[in-house]
Amino acid sequence: MMEDLHKMTSKKFEIAKRIQGTEKNVWVDISKLAVQQKSVNLGQGFPDFMAPEHVVQCLKDAVCSDTPGVHQYTRSFGHPRLVSALAQLYEPIFGRQIDPMTEILISIGGYGSLFSIIQGLVNPGDEVIIIEPFFDCYMPMVKAACGVPVFVPLRPTAAGQVTSSADWKLDESELSSKFNSKTKLIILNTPNNPLGKVFKKEELQVISDLCKKHDVVCIADEVYEWMTYDDNRHVRIATLPDMWERTVTIGSAGKTFSVTGWKLGWTIGPKHLVHCAQIMHQNCAYTCPTPMQEAVARGLEVEISRLGTPESYLTSLAKELQPKRDYLASVLAEVGMKPVVPQGGYFMMADYSNLVSDLPESDEAKDFRFVKWMTINKKLTVIPPTAFYSKEHEHMVDNYVRFCFIKKDSTLQQAAQILKHWND
Amino acid sequence: MMEDLHKMTSKKFEIAKRIQGTEKNVWVDISKLAVQQKSVNLGQGFPDFMAPEHVVQCLKDAVCSDTPGVHQYTRSFGHPRLVSALAQLYEPIFGRQIDPMTEILISIGGYGSLFSIIQGLVNPGDEVIIIEPFFDCYMPMVKAACGVPVFVPLRPTAAGQVTSSADWKLDESELSSKFNSKTKLIILNTPNNPLGKVFKKEELQVISDLCKKHDVVCIADEVYEWMTYDDNRHVRIATLPDMWERTVTIGSAGKTFSVTGWKLGWTIGPKHLVHCAQIMHQNCAYTCPTPMQEAVARGLEVEISRLGTPESYLTSLAKELQPKRDYLASVLAEVGMKPVVPQGGYFMMADYSNLVSDLPESDEAKDFRFVKWMTINKKLTVIPPTAFYSKEHEHMVDNYVRFCFIKKDSTLQQAAQILKHWND
Repeated sequence: MMEDLHKMTSKKFEIAKRIQGTEKNVWVDISKLAVQQKSVNLGQGFPDFMAPEHVVQCLKDAVCSDTPGVHQYTRSFGHPRLVSALAQLYEPIFGRQIDPMTEILISIGGYGSLFSIIQGLVNPGDEVIIIEPFFDCYMPMVKAACGVPVFVPLRPTAAGQVTSSADWKLDESELSSKFNSKTKLIILNTPNNPLGKVFKKEELQVISDLCKKHDVVCIADEVYEWMTYDDNRHVRIATLPDMWERTVTIGSAGKTFSVTGWKLGWTIGPKHLVHCAQIMHQNCAYTCPTPMQEAVARGLEVEISRLGTPESYLTSLAKELQPKRDYLASVLAEVGMKPVVPQGGYFMMADYSNLVSDLPESDEAKDFRFVKWMTINKKLTVIPPTAFYSKEHEHMVDNYVRFCFIKKDSTLQQAAQILKHWND
Repeated sequence: MMEDLHKMTSKKFEIAKRIQGTEKNVWVDISKLAVQQKSVNLGQGFPDFMAPEHVVQCLKDAVCSDTPGVHQYTRSFGHPRLVSALAQLYEPIFGRQIDPMTEILISIGGYGSLFSIIQGLVNPGDEVIIIEPFFDCYMPMVKAACGVPVFVPLRPTAAGQVTSSADWKLDESELSSKFNSKTKLIILNTPNNPLGKVFKKEELQVISDLCKKHDVVCIADEVYEWMTYDDNRHVRIATLPDMWERTVTIGSAGKTFSVTGWKLGWTIGPKHLVHCAQIMHQNCAYTCPTPMQEAVARGLEVEISRLGTPESYLTSLAKELQPKRDYLASVLAEVGMKPVVPQGGYFMMADYSNLVSDLPESDEAKDFRFVKWMTINKKLTVIPPTAFYSKEHEHMVDNYVRFCFIKKDSTLQQAAQILKHWND
């Protein structure tokens, strides 16, 4: 009877066309397997250590404040205390006044920020240029808006045992060939996930010139903005000449404060673009949780007071992460994995082809098969980077995996032991 | 120069067509005015008193637990502890086993739940039947999915100084005429906001029969499920024969626990429908904040242990609200406002036409003009209910306003004083 009903009604029960083909999600799949296998998890990007004490304290203070309002709806586009703190933090960074009410939107994580601006701007048939490797949600988000993703890969320009993410570059004429009158957006992720590339000012200038020439809006996903290493400096494309008017910059409390579970992000840009994201946000979430917003506001106020001091978490986090990066890179080089040392972020790509000669056959890309095999047989989990590529270009990285290094030293050492004793 | 740039690029900076016309939002507009005017606010639906102590304690405990994981990403479709608690709570209510992994989704409030299921099911051109008055977000959400909203009003069948929400009924032949082969969904809100109508089993049976006849999915927005008064009993359409397979039921932690700022909701239904919402959620938010999910899980565990006892918040809240409802109804009747006494929820509609003879002219509906005038001149804020109607039917309620009564007794008394001294 139920089966009959289901058959009879199958068409109306089908998933909407706009998200058909987006069912597969690397985080859902691989995280589930890692939990099942109790593996050492250098997969998804979150710390396995306690969040910074002063940030957790801000949440405790917010929750214990006995103000009834902290448990009730706040302003739709962002809790007033939070957008004010963000304006104060970012005004000197962008070198301009920022109106906290019209030039900032608070969303459910960087993820929700991306969703709101893409849905707020893209009409069916609009083209959106996505630089590969890309954070995997860009593609389904563009498809869900009935936009057309157009891919352009960063291409490795160096070989060797140890290379740098700086060696992966856009080919200028290839990039330029992707722009046309239908191009609505380009999505730029710097520092890049999964590669760790930090785009240099000259590289951003090329993108900026094309945006202006073809009248294109730039979404600058800068959630790893505070994590750069060595002498790499994070440059914001919104600060290049005439780019503020056509750029929205996305940031994340989860990345900034190592609290990915708080799921708060922000969109900063000119009123005419932020407005489009605000209206979409108003229609899909209405407002973000007040306790999280109050806590992040308090956290940012502390950071503003600590700017330029050794206590600033905005600068100390990268100092804490750099030895982890260096340790992981040396281990990977030692076991023959050819790491691409990242200039920023907390991920590292590395070539695994020296570790295995044959893998179980299946319809899946080679890196997926390797990651599943390693999770089950070696109890180590990483992320297959073809998840960050179009079908057309996934062959470029199917010998690579992505490691996350915002993990306890002991976790990284466990992973090192597994790799060093691979053939034991 | 900037102005030139803006003109030159105006087309690419335009808001996406799918949300054009959804810019106006009654909550954003009226809440802003209420804050500016420092008025007595019986507008937006949230308590102005402290959330229940044991629920707040659950959030404090979660946040103070010193488990690193509480600050990091949890499972995309719902924190395991939370979906398990929900399955345990709702299994006896729905009279069936519920798989916490495949038959439940956690979203950003009831709002996010509605968005995910509408986007997950509706294709361009699909018709969605919306019963008036409706919670205002249904219409833009259907439009954002390129669906076609089809409206059918509840019609008042009684007149007098004091009437009941039970007197507002669907005309069966009118309702039936709205169903056709293009009908994908009907959205049912019981107890209803703003009217407070609690649909009776016979009324639900009519809707259910039409859903089965025309192969239509029902979204049952039941966020006020625990708030019914007198002998009105909340009946779930998913429990009617053969309706589980074609119904998703939406609930809300914000409404259940009087913590609207926590922004957590749930979608419960058969795997084949919940899957569509899960995939959309995965593409727009990925996951909800872990601290809020952990706190609500703990809160539900407490409630499960208290079911059937006087300590159960699920039943005590309505007992706390009923005298507030009765007080407000008597005040409104006393000043000649003809209240429609709600069977459930925490809102009350009332006719204001005896209070004013002429209002400032403008393009806005009469109830909007009255609410703004009253907020500014009488320092009392309520909600204009034409926001819950299609243009075609808004004339049916432009003499009404909506009062929220989940407020401190002292707030209700302040409002009563304003109304009683209207002409002083």
